[in-house]
Amino acid sequence: MQKSNAFVDVLKNIRELVGAEFYSDSLEDRLCYSYDATIEEALPDAIVSPGATEDIARIMKWANEAKMPVIPRGAGTGLSGGSVPVKGGLVMILTRLNRILEINEADFYMVVEPGVITNTINEVMAKKGFMYPPDPASMKTSTIGGNVAENAGGLRGLKYGVTKNYVMALEVVTPTGEIIKTGTHTVKTATGYNLTQLFVGSEGTLGVITKITLKFIPAPEHKESMMAIFKDMNQAAQTVADIIKSGVVPATLEFLDHITINAVEDFERIGLPRDADALLLIETDGMKEAAIREIASVEEICKKNDAFKTQKAKTEKEREIVWAARRVAFSALARVRPTTILEDATVPRSRIPDMVRGVNQIARKYNIMIGNFGHAGDGNLHPTILTDERDKEEFARVEKAIEEIFDLALKLDGTLSGEHGIGYSKAKFLENEVGKDGLAVMKRVKDALDPNGILNPGKMSL
Amino acid sequence: MQKSNAFVDVLKNIRELVGAEFYSDSLEDRLCYSYDATIEEALPDAIVSPGATEDIARIMKWANEAKMPVIPRGAGTGLSGGSVPVKGGLVMILTRLNRILEINEADFYMVVEPGVITNTINEVMAKKGFMYPPDPASMKTSTIGGNVAENAGGLRGLKYGVTKNYVMALEVVTPTGEIIKTGTHTVKTATGYNLTQLFVGSEGTLGVITKITLKFIPAPEHKESMMAIFKDMNQAAQTVADIIKSGVVPATLEFLDHITINAVEDFERIGLPRDADALLLIETDGMKEAAIREIASVEEICKKNDAFKTQKAKTEKEREIVWAARRVAFSALARVRPTTILEDATVPRSRIPDMVRGVNQIARKYNIMIGNFGHAGDGNLHPTILTDERDKEEFARVEKAIEEIFDLALKLDGTLSGEHGIGYSKAKFLENEVGKDGLAVMKRVKDALDPNGILNPGKMSL
Repeated sequence: MQKSNAFVDVLKNIRELVGAEFYSDSLEDRLCYSYDATIEEALPDAIVSPGATEDIARIMKWANEAKMPVIPRGAGTGLSGGSVPVKGGLVMILTRLNRILEINEADFYMVVEPGVITNTINEVMAKKGFMYPPDPASMKTSTIGGNVAENAGGLRGLKYGVTKNYVMALEVVTPTGEIIKTGTHTVKTATGYNLTQLFVGSEGTLGVITKITLKFIPAPEHKESMMAIFKDMNQAAQTVADIIKSGVVPATLEFLDHITINAVEDFERIGLPRDADALLLIETDGMKEAAIREIASVEEICKKNDAFKTQKAKTEKEREIVWAARRVAFSALARVRPTTILEDATVPRSRIPDMVRGVNQIARKYNIMIGNFGHAGDGNLHPTILTDERDKEEFARVEKAIEEIFDLALKLDGTLSGEHGIGYSKAKFLENEVGKDGLAVMKRVKDALDPNGILNPGKMSL
Repeated sequence: MQKSNAFVDVLKNIRELVGAEFYSDSLEDRLCYSYDATIEEALPDAIVSPGATEDIARIMKWANEAKMPVIPRGAGTGLSGGSVPVKGGLVMILTRLNRILEINEADFYMVVEPGVITNTINEVMAKKGFMYPPDPASMKTSTIGGNVAENAGGLRGLKYGVTKNYVMALEVVTPTGEIIKTGTHTVKTATGYNLTQLFVGSEGTLGVITKITLKFIPAPEHKESMMAIFKDMNQAAQTVADIIKSGVVPATLEFLDHITINAVEDFERIGLPRDADALLLIETDGMKEAAIREIASVEEICKKNDAFKTQKAKTEKEREIVWAARRVAFSALARVRPTTILEDATVPRSRIPDMVRGVNQIARKYNIMIGNFGHAGDGNLHPTILTDERDKEEFARVEKAIEEIFDLALKLDGTLSGEHGIGYSKAKFLENEVGKDGLAVMKRVKDALDPNGILNPGKMSL
């Protein structure tokens, strides 16, 4: 096969370029890089760990000539199959590029390589009195490059935004092997097309990100946390609406439904009431007086909406306990059944009650188990389907339910993905949201930058 | 001439479509739309004021077939020649599309048409207790569509960001006449390419924006303003650095240099000391206790850096007086000489002293007059060249000085434009910032979306 021969030569060149230590085409290694945190799986032809931008540019030039797929990959914690090599080819692992190159405390920016662990950034900046706000649940393992590629979110979306809001500039290797710089190190810029934000969230389909300039901000001097428990989900929803209406913008405003509360209680006895329909976790932050006054007004709103329990954390330890329920939510749900599918259908905040009710109806209709938790403040819900992929009959129902969940989110003026990306898992649904002409424009952009379609093919239906 | 004939037919069709009232090819009208707020000028072939998205789609289809340039235009307050029809063609005025279509107070977004005046948005939202933060100096005349097209900034960039940070979704007519929707009404989204941010700041070269979803936020409950005057620009610069270092992020942090202070004092006797080298205007906002504590800490920092006068506004009236100096800065400079060229070279905040010193050296070198004022907090400086374009000899020196100012901004890790865009005036400099390969990527995007190059040709060197 001619195509294979072309690949063999290119792979040989790549192995020579980076050294045998950083290249592999053994089945064991290929298996290790055949999946992410979803249930998708596909074997690559080979894997490479380049150590320099120039090597990546060289590899992209060769791959482009040979029309060989290249799939950039960070830690593989993605939740949409974004880094799964569904068309084979070369998985390019970017974790060797893991240096923090610059921290500019006067101008509030830092330059990092894509392989830096997100939590490292959070910790390094916290020690200096700053905050890098995006905090995806995977941050202790995920890389910042993956966060940028998928526009990862986290708990602080409402007040602080998501990854895209903190990316100021990039160095990118194009699919044709040019090294370009996008954006600036200035707060304001109106110079040329915003290529930075075109690459952010492009899921490795438009370029390989090799340097990232991130904005950071001063850390808030004070935090206040509380939990409120409700007998009826509508009371919780009204509480969220009333908090927002009062002008308070909490740093986090998290929601757990009845199924999730019970899974958490099974997993780790925190003492949550099992008959509760909804739980809200709220944190305010900022200057001390402000955060205290805000949490007091939040507590009042919770009580006005008949929360049957509110609990303010008085110490850092109490704060930890308040947040334990949220932190273990996914793990608690994941142990109920063998397969856990975490979705991130997102709606405008005011539509959350409609969304939760709708998801529950879908669960009943298809007789499957779905827990709901997520970011009430920004409408980013995580319907979590508890199933067993080996049970073909049940899994067929699950797939239908997922389709209906997406339809519902779109009907409620929402979006297919709040923070996980489209990747492979949701590729076939993309047109439902962006329309035929919208998708055609995306395709034109993709073709313009990647004429041979080698970069992460098969994703986002592009 | 065949090309002309093709235009004649298309223009006849367009006139019929929109009605004679909303079309003109008279010389008077063409002259009215031959310029913006720069010194650039070029006559269009005709002007049209469409009243509906569908009409715009029809016009774009016809124009695309005839390869006739179309130049979208709002209020024409642009400062980079962005809406000047440098290749002739049809100026498309979008001011008839001036409705606020929806205000969603629960989900913090509004949907507006591009012809709404920016200040109308500010006022409407303020009355409801919200804030739409971008406040370009032109906001009493400029349209939100123009703001989006140029990614306009304003005084609140440091704390609140610029126009791009508030655009959630768009309806856009492509150069080939399709109507697409980009973005979502949700706080978070990771669905497909970020076409919204590709269109924001694309200066009318990629599509005609026909609907805009803007994010708004709760208005801060309290504001505190103060002025600080310094004998030496370095003291002011150190003050800015120290404020930022202290963790205070002022809502505005404005700077006026010696020449600007004297022009202001000539124009309107506020009582500024004429020997002052720099003046800072600072506003903190947020919850009352927080804003008061912040302004106190700012005042202390000003005194520590030997400000020879600080003045805190105690009433709304005093606040007005404090801000009068900044508000009249441009008008005061503009009356000194017949021609005023307002630049917006922008550098990382910590490089402002280097930038001001460098601009002053350039002014001396070319023996021209340049006042400096701008947004110290976000590094967005407005070197304002006071000249007379009829004096060919002097103007040649001015052009050289402008080139050197841009070179300097880039040398200081800055950008050609903080908030005015590249347009026509700075097109030839764009490659200096984004590089040959970066510009090539922009060109590929442009060609992909606008294969006949009809939308606002001659801009951004694309």
